[in-house]
Amino acid sequence: MTTVVPPRSTGKNRITEQQRVAHEGLVADLRERVPGRPMPGHFYTDPSVFDADLDLIFGRQWFFATTEAEVAEAGDYVTIDVGTRSIIVIRSDDEVVRAFHNVCRHRGARVLTEPAGFVGNLVCSYHSWTYGTDGALRHAPNLPEGEDPACLGLRKVSIRVIAGLVFLCLAAEPPADIDDFAERLTPYLAPHNLAGAKVASQVDIIESGNWKLVMENNRECYHCDGHPELSASFFPTYGLATQDVPASLRAAHDQFLLAEADLAVRCDELGLPKEVQEDLVEPNVAYRFGREALDGAGESFSLSGRVLVTKSLADLGETRLGRLTIHSQPNIWVHVMSDHAVVFTALPLSPDRTLVRTTWLVNADAVEGTHYQLDDLTYVWTETNTQDSVFVARTHAGVTDPAYLPGPYTAAEYQVDNFLSWYVDRMLEGCGESTGQGEGASEATA
Amino acid sequence: MTTVVPPRSTGKNRITEQQRVAHEGLVADLRERVPGRPMPGHFYTDPSVFDADLDLIFGRQWFFATTEAEVAEAGDYVTIDVGTRSIIVIRSDDEVVRAFHNVCRHRGARVLTEPAGFVGNLVCSYHSWTYGTDGALRHAPNLPEGEDPACLGLRKVSIRVIAGLVFLCLAAEPPADIDDFAERLTPYLAPHNLAGAKVASQVDIIESGNWKLVMENNRECYHCDGHPELSASFFPTYGLATQDVPASLRAAHDQFLLAEADLAVRCDELGLPKEVQEDLVEPNVAYRFGREALDGAGESFSLSGRVLVTKSLADLGETRLGRLTIHSQPNIWVHVMSDHAVVFTALPLSPDRTLVRTTWLVNADAVEGTHYQLDDLTYVWTETNTQDSVFVARTHAGVTDPAYLPGPYTAAEYQVDNFLSWYVDRMLEGCGESTGQGEGASEATA
Amino acid sequence: MTTVVPPRSTGKNRITEQQRVAHEGLVADLRERVPGRPMPGHFYTDPSVFDADLDLIFGRQWFFATTEAEVAEAGDYVTIDVGTRSIIVIRSDDEVVRAFHNVCRHRGARVLTEPAGFVGNLVCSYHSWTYGTDGALRHAPNLPEGEDPACLGLRKVSIRVIAGLVFLCLAAEPPADIDDFAERLTPYLAPHNLAGAKVASQVDIIESGNWKLVMENNRECYHCDGHPELSASFFPTYGLATQDVPASLRAAHDQFLLAEADLAVRCDELGLPKEVQEDLVEPNVAYRFGREALDGAGESFSLSGRVLVTKSLADLGETRLGRLTIHSQPNIWVHVMSDHAVVFTALPLSPDRTLVRTTWLVNADAVEGTHYQLDDLTYVWTETNTQDSVFVARTHAGVTDPAYLPGPYTAAEYQVDNFLSWYVDRMLEGCGESTGQGEGASEATA
Repeated sequence: MTTVVPPRSTGKNRITEQQRVAHEGLVADLRERVPGRPMPGHFYTDPSVFDADLDLIFGRQWFFATTEAEVAEAGDYVTIDVGTRSIIVIRSDDEVVRAFHNVCRHRGARVLTEPAGFVGNLVCSYHSWTYGTDGALRHAPNLPEGEDPACLGLRKVSIRVIAGLVFLCLAAEPPADIDDFAERLTPYLAPHNLAGAKVASQVDIIESGNWKLVMENNRECYHCDGHPELSASFFPTYGLATQDVPASLRAAHDQFLLAEADLAVRCDELGLPKEVQEDLVEPNVAYRFGREALDGAGESFSLSGRVLVTKSLADLGETRLGRLTIHSQPNIWVHVMSDHAVVFTALPLSPDRTLVRTTWLVNADAVEGTHYQLDDLTYVWTETNTQDSVFVARTHAGVTDPAYLPGPYTAAEYQVDNFLSWYVDRMLEGCGESTGQGEGASEATA
Repeated sequence: MTTVVPPRSTGKNRITEQQRVAHEGLVADLRERVPGRPMPGHFYTDPSVFDADLDLIFGRQWFFATTEAEVAEAGDYVTIDVGTRSIIVIRSDDEVVRAFHNVCRHRGARVLTEPAGFVGNLVCSYHSWTYGTDGALRHAPNLPEGEDPACLGLRKVSIRVIAGLVFLCLAAEPPADIDDFAERLTPYLAPHNLAGAKVASQVDIIESGNWKLVMENNRECYHCDGHPELSASFFPTYGLATQDVPASLRAAHDQFLLAEADLAVRCDELGLPKEVQEDLVEPNVAYRFGREALDGAGESFSLSGRVLVTKSLADLGETRLGRLTIHSQPNIWVHVMSDHAVVFTALPLSPDRTLVRTTWLVNADAVEGTHYQLDDLTYVWTETNTQDSVFVARTHAGVTDPAYLPGPYTAAEYQVDNFLSWYVDRMLEGCGESTGQGEGASEATA
Repeated sequence: MTTVVPPRSTGKNRITEQQRVAHEGLVADLRERVPGRPMPGHFYTDPSVFDADLDLIFGRQWFFATTEAEVAEAGDYVTIDVGTRSIIVIRSDDEVVRAFHNVCRHRGARVLTEPAGFVGNLVCSYHSWTYGTDGALRHAPNLPEGEDPACLGLRKVSIRVIAGLVFLCLAAEPPADIDDFAERLTPYLAPHNLAGAKVASQVDIIESGNWKLVMENNRECYHCDGHPELSASFFPTYGLATQDVPASLRAAHDQFLLAEADLAVRCDELGLPKEVQEDLVEPNVAYRFGREALDGAGESFSLSGRVLVTKSLADLGETRLGRLTIHSQPNIWVHVMSDHAVVFTALPLSPDRTLVRTTWLVNADAVEGTHYQLDDLTYVWTETNTQDSVFVARTHAGVTDPAYLPGPYTAAEYQVDNFLSWYVDRMLEGCGESTGQGEGASEATA
């Protein structure tokens, strides 16, 4: 779970002496995190930590930005805000999905100001500097002599599309283990054909809490008593090993194990991979994904467990496929059922505000009113998101209190703990420090 | 008025070397305060001074939180916000009024989210951790082995109830002179039976100014020309010694002296203490209280001076008792008449925002519409509060101006001056420094 | 364009050692500005730079506050906010326009709270301290013995009225070159009789951008494609030397040159100075003013170019006078036509918010509905201001993005470049440093 790496001394992401000094207090605080417990309060509230999160997590790691379905045609774009950044994701004229900083190379104006749309060229409204969909500067009136337009294209952002999910990385040298993640995930996700899906609905809510609290909240079902609608199809022992299941949940867990065995047979017949793959601490692109059974009819996130869309995402010959659940740090979690997918992402706005975007994807040929009812499709996760936003707000308020002390995680919250261990290690690496929460850390600091 | 104390070197409240360094600039600024004048502007506006106020004043001194009437029955609670803190005051099942930090010991969520209410147990809505009204952790599902529930109760806050007024202290070692204050005040306040009263009305306003400006405003009547409704019953020479009364107010002052003499006779007959006790600078629990005459009928804060509630708070055999006025630093002022009490408290929200809560208490058996009209009862102080909030906002705006220079207090403002001397000394003590504004300070720094 | 001056070592504005240390990082950043390009992003967004702007630009330089028309009669006042300051500009009983800090000398309350009005005396509403229109303390009840009322007048602000425009300076020793500016400008402006004009309309908008971006935006017409209404009368080659005019604008530029020649003849006949005077970098009171032709009928900012007010500002015997355009740093730009004047000023509110006030002045005897229609009078600049506010907001958003890189100015933007060179030099001087962007700077730092 932990590792010791030498401080980076070469490469484009290297640390300057000035940054090292600035990070000194942060490093000391990171090293004091107690595994098995949440972070101390200021990690969720301090503006300087928030800036460091943007710099060392969202500025260095791959993060999820959008679905390929949102940029289906050449000229389609979305703009994604991360902290004070805005990034354009656009399908260019040659059908490649590309990403650029949404900043004009002249005087810095935002080039695109809508959250999504369609353009032929990227034209800055201020002085009409015009860029192609490949980011190249095509027209700038009266450009001074000696200025090379080839050096004034929109600045590029690294991009990786994996079976319909679009990831970005702002680092000069993006982490290479995105390759491993893509190779592992593709066999699970590709059969569902997300790249050919359409957006049935997309809802943004702004939660009143730090982005890490949003991520911590979605990594456990210890709080699922607070989600009555979700609990109709979601087994309440999520995250618990069999030996940790309390007596009160044993009957539910037995039912889960039966449903899992049943799902395993079906997946084998269809040639769909099922087993959970999980490495939530060590890789830069940390992950957990696998196919898990749903309760009730076992098909989808409805109160009955039956499908919500009568046209499947892909023709897999079976609707009772539970959920392909995908989580990747820092900011995405997904459920893919036979009939639809629901994609969640958290984008930090400020220390105490996080955008949570939920996107429901269905077969591109599915017709609202015929194949699905939009209110039904979005019901369970709309209610669940609202409930979660209350939990996050109450927790953010509490961790700002000087009286807050991090308490113990229970067994059902091990993924929350893993997320924070990953966070601490990535932050330490970002500061040019050796990593490792546990014996590794002890050795490193001894 | 001033004293020199050695720096604290022992005890739980002691100062670390790190804190001493952080406080250095503050200490230098505190020592430059000119007695007889307000603080320099940044003491009212700088976020770092605000944080120090929360830490060194509200974090170390006893402050007023609520009236006992608001937690009359077992299970009744109020939550009090001080800066980013939230504190639960609850009457526990054994009828004791207790106080706890409103922070779940698991992941920090706020346990109670309403300003007031009634509960059987204290249940955190996030993961259902459940605490008794005594703060003990009663139930936490799947608590890891090795975690002792006895160590995971809600964190306690020191509490002291004095004749119906509830004071809290966040310090590890609360100032001991609360005992002296309680002993002095109880003979004055207990006869009015506030503990058995009920809340007729409670109004919160958020003033656009620093909490110290709110306190300074209420410590003088030099501005009472701005309070026409209050001036019907409140003598305009408040705060002035007879020799300082200007010619224009001499007739009013003569009337005041007559009313005082009359009230003194009545108090003697009833065995009610009257004389003012005042020590606004030296004690941690600084105070001023005593019985003072009201104008007009001399009974209450009405335009005529007559009672506003026909059922007295306590059966004292007389309604013309003026006002028992109580002030204690940092944050409470009270007027108790024969028919009702009005309790004011200031709670800092941010450098430029202060919650001012006004609570009108009447006999628990008084019936609205029969014994009192709510609009009449609250009229004078509602108008007065609104007027004061304008004064505070205008002053806050002015002291943020770099052109602001602290000007001279007049004789009528000596209590304002005393409040600031107390503030400076408590802040210096909190920084581990010797205190004393005046010759004491000169000697200490010589 | 640049100059080397020795650090100031004497005088009331001199720099303390403490300030010099505080300014060190700022100085290094200022010296790194690349001429020909905008400032790095943090110069527009960082609160500490904003504070330095208030201190070193608005705290040391002359800036525009109001028009004399707004304080036409004795007792007329306006209050002007600059950062956290409020300044009273009032015509005193002896008909002199004076300026005072709007801070009571007692406890700091704002004395006047309206943006404009009329008073006999200046009475603080808090404790009734009363000042004359000359700022002298006239009445303070119970002022302590030993306090001299003569030392407790409202604090004065330096003021200079130039042909109807009121400038203020907060420095102890205001820059002396205001004399040169006044001497140069008066022959151009005085004939239009602004001092005897009246305000037809005044509109405040708050732009979502740094004050420097507001100023940069108004210094070029490279973006005038975004101003269709303005372009009806405003020649689109503004700022371009003939040799820099692109082919697409050559016809328009030829028309401009003809209109200019025509206007020059007319000005000669009338004895009105026309030629542009410009020194935008070296003086403290940097300026550009001169008479320039308008398109269409050449009279005013209407869609036809004809006058919008049938009663001229002054009787000059001709309405086709183009625009007398005036710009002075840091915060004023003006257009004076034969029929009306429009005065713009930018007042910084916070790093990302700027008040832009537009004042339309007409002949004091012009009657709305008879001599002008208000909607017509204000149409072009209301639309233009709205368009500019969008440009400023988009630019501010973009320069907060860590991906922003300052790009090259084109020839049409030389005044923007000059503004920033002036800004950098004034800031360096304010820090007690030698100045000069270009060879001067190179020599100074070599």
